[in-house]
This record gives sequence, structure tokens and C-alpha cells, in this order.
Amino acid sequence: MSVSERPSGAVAPGQVRAGAFDVGLLGHGTVGAAFAGLLAERAEAVERATGRRPRLSGTLTRSEGDFEQILASSEAIVELIGGVEPAREYLLRALRAGRHVVTANKQLLSHHGEELFQAAREGGAQLRFEAAVAGVVPVIRVLSESLAGAHVERVHGIVNGTTNFILTEMAGGASYEQALAEAQRQGYAEADPSEDVSGKDAAAKMAILARLAFGTPVHIDQVTYEGIERLQTDDLQYARELGLGLKLVGTAERRDGGLSVRVHPAFLYGDHPLASVGGPFNAVTVESEAITEITMSGPGAGGVQTASAVLGDLISTMLPPPAGWAGSNGWAGPNPPLPLVGDVPSAFYIHIELADRPGALAAVAQALGDQGASIKSVVQRGLGERARLVMVIHPLAESKLREALERIGELDFLRSTPRAIRVIEEEFT
Amino acid sequence: MSVSERPSGAVAPGQVRAGAFDVGLLGHGTVGAAFAGLLAERAEAVERATGRRPRLSGTLTRSEGDFEQILASSEAIVELIGGVEPAREYLLRALRAGRHVVTANKQLLSHHGEELFQAAREGGAQLRFEAAVAGVVPVIRVLSESLAGAHVERVHGIVNGTTNFILTEMAGGASYEQALAEAQRQGYAEADPSEDVSGKDAAAKMAILARLAFGTPVHIDQVTYEGIERLQTDDLQYARELGLGLKLVGTAERRDGGLSVRVHPAFLYGDHPLASVGGPFNAVTVESEAITEITMSGPGAGGVQTASAVLGDLISTMLPPPAGWAGSNGWAGPNPPLPLVGDVPSAFYIHIELADRPGALAAVAQALGDQGASIKSVVQRGLGERARLVMVIHPLAESKLREALERIGELDFLRSTPRAIRVIEEEFT
Repeated sequence: MSVSERPSGAVAPGQVRAGAFDVGLLGHGTVGAAFAGLLAERAEAVERATGRRPRLSGTLTRSEGDFEQILASSEAIVELIGGVEPAREYLLRALRAGRHVVTANKQLLSHHGEELFQAAREGGAQLRFEAAVAGVVPVIRVLSESLAGAHVERVHGIVNGTTNFILTEMAGGASYEQALAEAQRQGYAEADPSEDVSGKDAAAKMAILARLAFGTPVHIDQVTYEGIERLQTDDLQYARELGLGLKLVGTAERRDGGLSVRVHPAFLYGDHPLASVGGPFNAVTVESEAITEITMSGPGAGGVQTASAVLGDLISTMLPPPAGWAGSNGWAGPNPPLPLVGDVPSAFYIHIELADRPGALAAVAQALGDQGASIKSVVQRGLGERARLVMVIHPLAESKLREALERIGELDFLRSTPRAIRVIEEEFT
Repeated sequence: MSVSERPSGAVAPGQVRAGAFDVGLLGHGTVGAAFAGLLAERAEAVERATGRRPRLSGTLTRSEGDFEQILASSEAIVELIGGVEPAREYLLRALRAGRHVVTANKQLLSHHGEELFQAAREGGAQLRFEAAVAGVVPVIRVLSESLAGAHVERVHGIVNGTTNFILTEMAGGASYEQALAEAQRQGYAEADPSEDVSGKDAAAKMAILARLAFGTPVHIDQVTYEGIERLQTDDLQYARELGLGLKLVGTAERRDGGLSVRVHPAFLYGDHPLASVGGPFNAVTVESEAITEITMSGPGAGGVQTASAVLGDLISTMLPPPAGWAGSNGWAGPNPPLPLVGDVPSAFYIHIELADRPGALAAVAQALGDQGASIKSVVQRGLGERARLVMVIHPLAESKLREALERIGELDFLRSTPRAIRVIEEEFT
């Protein structure tokens, strides 16, 4: 080894960047323990890259450690506790005291992002959070650095590995309940999976991505989301006949001079870059006129992957903070924020079961036509006395689709509640 | 607009980072013109992000402009001339004079990387080259920053859009000549396509990626490469029967304590992340124990995409140079470089035409077995008097495969030269 071992803490007078870089760790669960291990393992390589050797100055767990002491003895704080409090209070104090912060806490960022970024500005500290979205897939860095000069049009993401695993299983024929049980068995879903399957986890991540991509503060409450709990294996099978695949897709895009951020199940055409993302993987596609589109994919957040993303961020905090951090670190800065808009048009897949009788299709088509919907494709299939009608309509505002579905729901030959799922067409080529 | 317009050049005394950021542009071809346009269009957004407004201080073309004058009046030089000289001389002078350099010149970097990085160290300047590999896909930044702390095991890349377009056409049934003509018609291939189809362009890019991923200087002469000129449409069709797809794949990986860097046509199993990358797209997969694997994909280098990658780099040069740049910018620094190794084992697909006579398969199997090859799958098909034998063998050193093919070539019932193409198996899951 050509690297000289410096005695810990031995910093020559007047020499700012040398010796150890002290890191305080908050939380020592799966990810925390993985990070502590990885830091020790990679300390020498990090020293080669940065000139300083990182080491843990202290660890705070539920039962041990003292935050004041850790704060006083650290240059950077790694937060892996999760949840809003006390993480929020710790990080506000750390940032205001000029300590860099690396966190994987999407909940905190999507609820209190503005407050945290403000504290970082006040303290002249870096706030980094690659691990909060898409695990080790470096979408945060790419959006905030590589694409800092690009005019982003749209971000699509599969940002929840649990639901993607479940949908992959369902595409293979499993029921929702079977697929969820399998996800739990393999450790991809929690015992209480509601944050994931409701779309809320993905919504928090899309709020974070939207902020970076569009320089606009987005609170999780401004993200509309819909989960996968009501999807049926049938939907995936019929969709396959139409050449579609089903994913839980987060979207953040410019619409009518504003910004729309939403999460919902969506059918994708087979050539969409997200269509082939299977199992617990995450992927994000960024579209812009100048770049066409970039897709990044990789495993969702396991303990080791998250720890690796945290270490990458930590290394960045060991380098001088970029001067333009305000603009590239996810808060809006002087950029006029975009208004958030709702009720955006989508193409829809619609599934209807009705009594197999003359005029049924005509009545359904009439209800849709009255709202301005135009039908792109339709498959009708007899099932004894019933018929199943599966159709795809061209883009229609959500409110009009709802209106049409209500009208269809009142038809007396209907045999089940109509289901509608958005279809993402090839928007950009 | 909330951004105040500063008169150009008006820097308050003692205020270092304010006012314009002067950029000298070398080259004004397709990419150069696209960059000049994009810079003007995005100047205000860049000012919001960095606090300084970039502007062109001068442009050097074949017929106009003066390098000395441009160098004297610029903080950063953007090199889009291409080729080795005079680009090399200009960039060495700029870096030594402390000017940051952004370049898309893979040829220069893969031949004279060490010299350029050394000049950057001497001048305390940044050398950035995202656009040299995979266009707008941010693989350089991800390798040098996000993954700076990771122990990379392997990089696989489809880094040449021309050949990927041709292979995609051939997979659809076109002959090599038809596919090349179509690529030329659509502007994806040059009139003289030899740099691309020979694999040399991809080899230069893999040298650059290998340096970053493994902290080891790699010269293009250390990269073994093989092109796509001799591939047959047949190979793609037989391979499909075996569940494989065909790509020109660059590989840089740790092998036997050293580093192997190579480019060759390779069959990929359908679930490999690179298997679904079609048309002129580029994609890179990075594997490491901590991250499992990340895949990044996007369009190869068109003029606008390359310009966008150059702008992203330029923005980075406007921020303070990272302290640890030596370690994260692609030269080896104090890291002991890995030795380059050759003759690595691969699985192979082998295609043989022979007279349809008893004992033929046995003789072929014997020749392979003598070299230690073990057969994974085989398809034999009669064609009148001939038979085609298509097989996949388990990993075998290249030298042994060559030996076996020579032996097979001597068999008297052979009816055409045997062809062998590497097969990339799922190495990491």
C-alpha cells in the first residue's frame, strides 16, 4: 500500500483537509449496520479518493449514544433512523450547525424538504439523499448534476420494488394475494405492506424527484396516488392481448404551463423502457428535448445497496461544497416554481362485464362518446350469459373518464363495477 | 425573471465568483454548433444554478479564430474538434495553464489519457469527458462519483450505436450489407464505417470506462477487440432458437487479480439487462457486490445529445474542483494499477457446416473435448447433403477454443469455416 497510515485525529496545524473525517451515524438497523460495515471496509479506498479517511465518531441507537456528543464530534451526520421525528429535529440541528447530512429518509424529505434545505443554506452544509429514491440507482445525482443544464420534460419511474415484484408475479398468473404473500416470504414486502401497495411510498419519492427535475418544491400532499390493491390478474392477461404490460408508474411532467406529479398503475407498451423492468427492480426514465431519454435501472433498496448509495453521498460531502449548491440540490432557489396541476388527460384501459345482449356495446360506447372519449381498440368476449368488454381509449381528462364510468355504472345490464387503468403511450421518440 | 442581468464582464472587485464565465470553443461542426446554441439557450438557467452566466469568448474553426486569444480569454475550453492533433496540443496547453477542459474526444483520451490527466494535475484544472462515452448517458459521472466508493467487479457496455443499430436490423432478418446500408441511410453510420464496425470505437470507450471503474490506466492498445463484419444473419436466427440475442459488447472486469478489457460480438441471454437495448441506443451495466448491478441507457451520441452532455460537464467546471479529483477523475493516483490480462475464458456459440455423415458430430465433440470444452446445448439440422451444427459450450479459454477450431477446421467433412461467438451468461444475480 502506498498510502501512509495517519494516526487518527492527527491534523497538522493550518492543514484543513487531512487526517480523519468524522462521521456520526444515527440508527443502527439493517441499513445502519450495513453502512458501518461498508465504511470500515472501504475507508482506505475513500482516503485514496478524497485524501481523508472516514471513520465513525459515534452511533446513536434507541438505547445507546448521545446526539449532542455525536454532533459535536462529527463533520457529517448519516441519518438512517427513518420516520419524521426525531430525525427532523436532529437533521435541522446538524445542518444549522454546518454539519453535512446524508439521509435515506424519503418520508422526511417529502414532508419537510423546504425546512431542511433552508437549514442547509443557513448552515452552509450539504444535504444529500441519493439513497432516498431508487436505492443505488444514481437518479438524484444525475438529475441534480448531469442534467442540471437540461430542460426536463418528464420523469417516469418505477420507484417501489415491492409493488413491482408483486405485479411481476401477477403477470405470471398469480393473484394479488398470492403475489403479496410471496413478496413477504422473500422479504420484499413488510408484514404491513400498506405504505408500498397504496402507492404512498412511491408518491414520496416522486415528490423528491419532481423537485430536482423541475426546481419546484413539491410536498407529498400535492402528489395524487393510487395503489395496486384492486388490480386483478385478469387485467394483466387481457392487457397482454393488447400488447401491454402493467406497472406502478410515478410520473412528474410539465402540463399546461404547470407540473403534474402522480403515481398510479399504468399499462405500458412493450417498447417503453420501463416495460421490461421486472421483479424488485427500480428504474427511472428522464425525458428532455436535448437528451431524448435516459433510463437508469437497478435493484431497489436492500440494506447493502442503500448503504452503498449512502457511502457515495458521504464521499461527496468530503469534497468542497459546490458553489451553486442552491440550484443543484433540489430546492427551487430563484427559479419561479411551477404551479401543480391536476385532472390531466390519459389514455385508459377499461374493463367492463355486462349481460351479453344486443345494444350493450353501443350503450357503453355512447356513454364514453358523450364525454369526448374516442376508442382506440376493443376486445369483446362472451362468457356464457355475460360478456367482457376490454377497451383502450385515446387520452381523456380524468374527470371526464370518471363521469363516463358513472354513466356506464348506471346501465342496467352491467354485471360488475367497471375498472379503468391508465395507459402510457409512447410520448417521446 | 427574478435574475438580474449583469453587464458582461462586470465583476465587483474582490468578488471572485460573479459575472460571466468565459468559455472557448474549439470546433464548430455538428456538435460544436449544437453546443453553441444550447449554451445560449440555457445560459440563464445555468446562472441560476451556479451564480455565473456562461458565454462564448471565442470559437476556433478550421478557417477562423486564434487559439492563443481564446486561451487567454477563457476559464474553460470545450474541445469538439475530434482526432488526436491538434486537439492534444491545445488541451495540454489549456490544462497546464489552469483552464478547465471539457471534451468529447474518445480517441484522444484512449491514446493520451495519462498525459492529459498529468497536465490537469499540474495546472490544477478539471478534465471532464462525459460526452466521450455513451452520449448523454451519464456513465462517466456515475462511475467517478456515485460509485467512487464501490468496488466494481465488472462493466458491460453497448457503447457503439452504429453497430447496435445494424445488429438490431439483422435480428429482424436483414443481411449485414442491408443493415449497414440502412444505418448509412438513416445517418447512424458514416460513409466509411470501419471505426465503428471493427469495434475500434467501442474499444476506445471501454479503455476510458475501465480506467474510471478500476483506477487503472488503460491504453486502447491494451484492449482486444473484434468487430461485427463477419456476423451472419443465420447466427442471429439460430441463436434465437437457443434463447439468445446478439450484441457488440464491451467488457472490463477483474480476472485472476488483473483486469481484462475487450470488445466482441456476444450472445446474451434474454434476461440480461443489455439484451433488450435496441436500435442506436447505448447502455452500460456496472456490477459490484455492494450494488448488485446498475444499468444506464439512452440514445447514443447525436449532435444535440452530445452537446447536452458537454453542457452538464461545463456546469461542473463552474463549481469548485473537488479536492480528491485525482482519485475520482480517472487517473490511477496512488492506487496500485491492475495488470492487464488476456486469454480469458468465455462460453462460446459455435456454428459448423459439415457433410451429413455418421461420426461427424462425434469428431467435432472429440476435438472440443480434447481442449477441455464441455457442451451445454446443441442443435443439429440436416440441409440436404449438409448438416448444420450449432452448439453452446461452457466457459473455455480463448486460446483453447482457437486450438479446437483449428482441429475442427482440418476435418475432411467440413463444408465451411467454423464460426465462434462468445456467450455472456448471467454472471451476477
